[in-house]
Amino acid sequence: MKGARNRVVALCGGIGGAKLVLGLSRVITQADLTVIVNTADDFEHLGLAVSPDLDTVMYTLAGLDDPRRGWGRRDETWSFMRSLAALGGETWFRLGDGDLATHVERTRRLRQREKLSVITADFCRRLGVAVEIVPMSDDKVRTRVCTDIGDLDFQDYFVRRRCAPVVRRLDYEGAATARPHDLALAALRDSRLRAAVICPSNPLLSIEPILAMPQLREAVAACPAPVIGVSPIIAGAAVKGPTAKMMAELSLPVTASAVARRYSDLLDGYVVDRADASHAQELDVPVMITNTLMLSLADRELLARDVLGHADSLAKAPA
Amino acid sequence: MKGARNRVVALCGGIGGAKLVLGLSRVITQADLTVIVNTADDFEHLGLAVSPDLDTVMYTLAGLDDPRRGWGRRDETWSFMRSLAALGGETWFRLGDGDLATHVERTRRLRQREKLSVITADFCRRLGVAVEIVPMSDDKVRTRVCTDIGDLDFQDYFVRRRCAPVVRRLDYEGAATARPHDLALAALRDSRLRAAVICPSNPLLSIEPILAMPQLREAVAACPAPVIGVSPIIAGAAVKGPTAKMMAELSLPVTASAVARRYSDLLDGYVVDRADASHAQELDVPVMITNTLMLSLADRELLARDVLGHADSLAKAPA
Repeated sequence: MKGARNRVVALCGGIGGAKLVLGLSRVITQADLTVIVNTADDFEHLGLAVSPDLDTVMYTLAGLDDPRRGWGRRDETWSFMRSLAALGGETWFRLGDGDLATHVERTRRLRQREKLSVITADFCRRLGVAVEIVPMSDDKVRTRVCTDIGDLDFQDYFVRRRCAPVVRRLDYEGAATARPHDLALAALRDSRLRAAVICPSNPLLSIEPILAMPQLREAVAACPAPVIGVSPIIAGAAVKGPTAKMMAELSLPVTASAVARRYSDLLDGYVVDRADASHAQELDVPVMITNTLMLSLADRELLARDVLGHADSLAKAPA
Repeated sequence: MKGARNRVVALCGGIGGAKLVLGLSRVITQADLTVIVNTADDFEHLGLAVSPDLDTVMYTLAGLDDPRRGWGRRDETWSFMRSLAALGGETWFRLGDGDLATHVERTRRLRQREKLSVITADFCRRLGVAVEIVPMSDDKVRTRVCTDIGDLDFQDYFVRRRCAPVVRRLDYEGAATARPHDLALAALRDSRLRAAVICPSNPLLSIEPILAMPQLREAVAACPAPVIGVSPIIAGAAVKGPTAKMMAELSLPVTASAVARRYSDLLDGYVVDRADASHAQELDVPVMITNTLMLSLADRELLARDVLGHADSLAKAPA
C-alpha cells in the first residue's frame, strides 16, 4: 500500500520501556519497529564495556531476559561472580556467566574500532531479533548524578549505592556534542512513520539523556507522526526503580502529568493508567486512559495496541 | 636449624609439572617451595590476558583444578561459551565461567600497570596457596611455532590446530632480552636451597622457554643445590600433550635420555621411570629409576620424595 504509515519508533531505557517495546514488536511487524535506546548508563566495569539498557532491550526481544530479576539473562549461572569474589575482584555490579559473553565480545569488538551500533545490530541478527535496536549515539554520553554526597557516576549511584544519595541534579555529559545515530534520525524522519513512542522509562535517567542531544530532540519535535508518551508513574509510584524517589528529590510532583510536562513541547498524546484518570485534565495534550501496568505478555500487547490506537486517532490524514 | 637446606625451586609448565609441584608442596613446607612457571604460552584471547601454565599451577595448588580435563577449574560451568557462540564469538579456546574471573581480573589489573607476578601472588594469597608461584618474567616472552604451514602463535598451534602442523623450529620471542623475575633468581641463589627441580613438563614448550633467558639459565647452572630433572617421557611416549610428536618432528629420539641431553649442562641428577631403566646408562648424570607416572595423589608425593632423595644423595656436604 503506497503511503502506508506502518513504521514505529520507540525511545526507551531499560526494563519498563523494554516491556512496551516487546508489546509493540508483537503487534506490528518486527522489522517496522526501531528502538532508540539510552546509552548514558553505559559504563566500563572490570575493563568491560557494559550497556545495560541496550542489553535489556536486546535480551527482552530475543526472549533471553530474566522476567523476575528485570536485568540480565534467564537460566543464568553465577560461577564468574563467585570466582571473582574469591580473587578479591569487585562484586557490587553482578554479571552473570552468559551475560558476560555480551560484554566480553562487545569490548573486544569496540577495541577493534567497531561501532557500538554495528556490534548491537550484529548481536541482534545472531539472536534472531528483527527489530532495529539503535543506540542513541555511537558517541559517549554519560549520566552524572549530582547528589548530597557529591557527583557520582551513574552506576555508582544506581547499583553500588542503591540510589540512596539525594539527587540534586543530573548531567548528561557529552550529550550536547554527541551525534545521534543516523538510523535514529532517519527513523524519526521516515514519512512512513505511524507513531513515535516515548516509553514508560525513567524520564530523568532514560528518556532525557536521549532528548538531551539537540538534533535528536529536534527530530522528535519535527517527526511526521504523533508523538505519544506513556507514563512510567502509576498512582504516584514507579513500577520499578528510583523514578519516584528521584522526582521527589528534584522537587517534581510524583505524578503522571509531571512526567508529561517534561516532554510537553514534544507530545501529541499521552497515555496514563486508570489510577491516574483524575490527572488527565491537568494536561494540554489528548490523554488516553487505560491499563499501563504490564504484568503479563497480554498486558504488553494490549498497551502497545492502545498506544498505537491513540496515535492513529491523533494522526493528520495522510496528504 | 642454622644452615638448613630446606628450600626447593621447581621449573614448571602446565599439567605434568603441576602434578609434581603438588607432590613437592605436600612433602615440604609450602612456603619453602618456589615454582618458576613458564609464561611463553600466555596470550591475549577475546581481549583477555590468559596465562595457562600459571593458572594450572595455581589451581592445582589451590585444589581448584579439574583432574580429569587437565586444565581449567573443577565444577566448572560453561554458560559464557554457549552465549559467546550464539553471539558469533570465537570459541576454539574454551574458557569456563569460573576460570574467566581469573582472566578478567588479571586483565583489569594488568591494564592498571600491575605486574603479572604481583597479581599472581595476590591471587595465590587469596586462594590460600602458600607456595611462591613466580612467573618466569614480568616481561613478554612468546613461543612461536615454525611449522610446515607457516609460523604460528603458540595457542593457535596448540589449541586451535590441535598440534597437527609439523614443527620445524621453536622460537621464544623476547627471551633473550626479558628480565627473569627477581624472586626466581633469588630462589635459585638461596644458600638454603636443597634442590632445583626441572619438572616433567614439555621440554620444548615449557622448560626451554624459561631456560632461554640467559640470566635464568646461568642461575640454574650456578645454583648451590643439585639440579634434578624428571623425565616427561615414559617408555617412548608423553603422559599427555604433544611432547613426543614434537620431539619426533624435530628429529629428536623420543626417549627420556634425549630430554636429559637438552639440559645436560645443567643437570646434577635425573629421574626416569622404571620403564626406561635401560636408558639410564646412556646418560652421564646419576639417574634414579622410580615410578614417574603420577596417577594418584600418593604417586605425586612419592615422586616428590624420590626427587628430593636423589638431590640429597648428590648434595655436597654443607660447608
